[in-house]
Amino acid sequence: MTHHSQDMQACIDACLACYRTCLSTAMHHCLEAGGDHTEPAHFRLMAACAEMCRASAHIMLTGSDAHRHSCTACAAICSACADDCERVGGMAECVRACRECAEHCRRMGAMQ
Amino acid sequence: MTHHSQDMQACIDACLACYRTCLSTAMHHCLEAGGDHTEPAHFRLMAACAEMCRASAHIMLTGSDAHRHSCTACAAICSACADDCERVGGMAECVRACRECAEHCRRMGAMQ
Amino acid sequence: MTHHSQDMQACIDACLACYRTCLSTAMHHCLEAGGDHTEPAHFRLMAACAEMCRASAHIMLTGSDAHRHSCTACAAICSACADDCERVGGMAECVRACRECAEHCRRMGAMQ
Amino acid sequence: MTHHSQDMQACIDACLACYRTCLSTAMHHCLEAGGDHTEPAHFRLMAACAEMCRASAHIMLTGSDAHRHSCTACAAICSACADDCERVGGMAECVRACRECAEHCRRMGAMQ
Repeated sequence: MTHHSQDMQACIDACLACYRTCLSTAMHHCLEAGGDHTEPAHFRLMAACAEMCRASAHIMLTGSDAHRHSCTACAAICSACADDCERVGGMAECVRACRECAEHCRRMGAMQ
Repeated sequence: MTHHSQDMQACIDACLACYRTCLSTAMHHCLEAGGDHTEPAHFRLMAACAEMCRASAHIMLTGSDAHRHSCTACAAICSACADDCERVGGMAECVRACRECAEHCRRMGAMQ
Repeated sequence: MTHHSQDMQACIDACLACYRTCLSTAMHHCLEAGGDHTEPAHFRLMAACAEMCRASAHIMLTGSDAHRHSCTACAAICSACADDCERVGGMAECVRACRECAEHCRRMGAMQ
Repeated sequence: MTHHSQDMQACIDACLACYRTCLSTAMHHCLEAGGDHTEPAHFRLMAACAEMCRASAHIMLTGSDAHRHSCTACAAICSACADDCERVGGMAECVRACRECAEHCRRMGAMQ
């Protein structure tokens, strides 16, 4: 039983995958590596991105068309997080998850 | 000990107040009243608004400047929820909390 | 890159699957069907179960061994939700997701 | 308009206050201080505690009596977090918020 279009289902999947990757990477890789990885601005952006992805998935799951706003915000935050993870380096998985989520959310936010 | 400006503190307060009001009203007043109050589009928007307010507060609490994006989305969703609660009627407290949160978030999202 | 044991990974998967199923079913199937499906005690338990599953997954993702407490609570709430969904009827997918999540969380909560 | 008993309202307040304190302290004080404050086990417990407090408040706000389970888990995690913050030192506000939340949740979890 599914209550969402195929595109939305894929966007929810991408958001939850990015949430898991950002949170888990921050709490394991970043805390263990220290240095640039626990630099406040970087670590905070990882935490903000994890939360926005989680909320974006949640709002799509509610079925409300308010998701356009949250998807647009999620695309912007994921894109910023991907850039910052590239700058720090050694975070290829996070970069990939953020780019993929940003692309799904960008399209979902632009739909009417 | 506070880690946020006075404006941001007030915005976090408004977001958490709106989150509590929307969630609690949906789960008590709306479920008990039924009729228009559990009409899917209305109830889903209440749930989406509660989640966005919660995430908006969270992202401000992280200290990341990504909050601009989430505050902008939160302002839009709260504004839509206030309008819909006015349409349904009998939800003055929710309307007030949503309008106040939307105004705080709109300003916070517009800051550089 | 994974930061969790295979058992924990499976428990996180079960929690997020149950979260999605409970939230999506409440917001679509239950709101559209009305009647017993929006009876306050039932609907609230669905919402509580979705939240506990989401938090349980989150706490495992942080890597903290505090997850024992949240997994134990999640097992109890999922089990209660499965029973209530069976009582209401027509919610086989939710029953299955809750039972599976309860079983994973029960084992994870009992580990030292 | 309130939908909760005075005791529950106080418990929700304590949970949200502890959530804000733990999250904000981790993301500001701990990340900026480094050293023991970003030691993985400590930081993860702070994050787990913030999440459990947030979920505990949420589940009480839903009105479901499933809150007994989440309150019990929250009391245990807050108590562990208070002890760990005392061990690390310089975190008096977090210790106080965790002890207060643990006490409210312990009582709420024990009620029938």
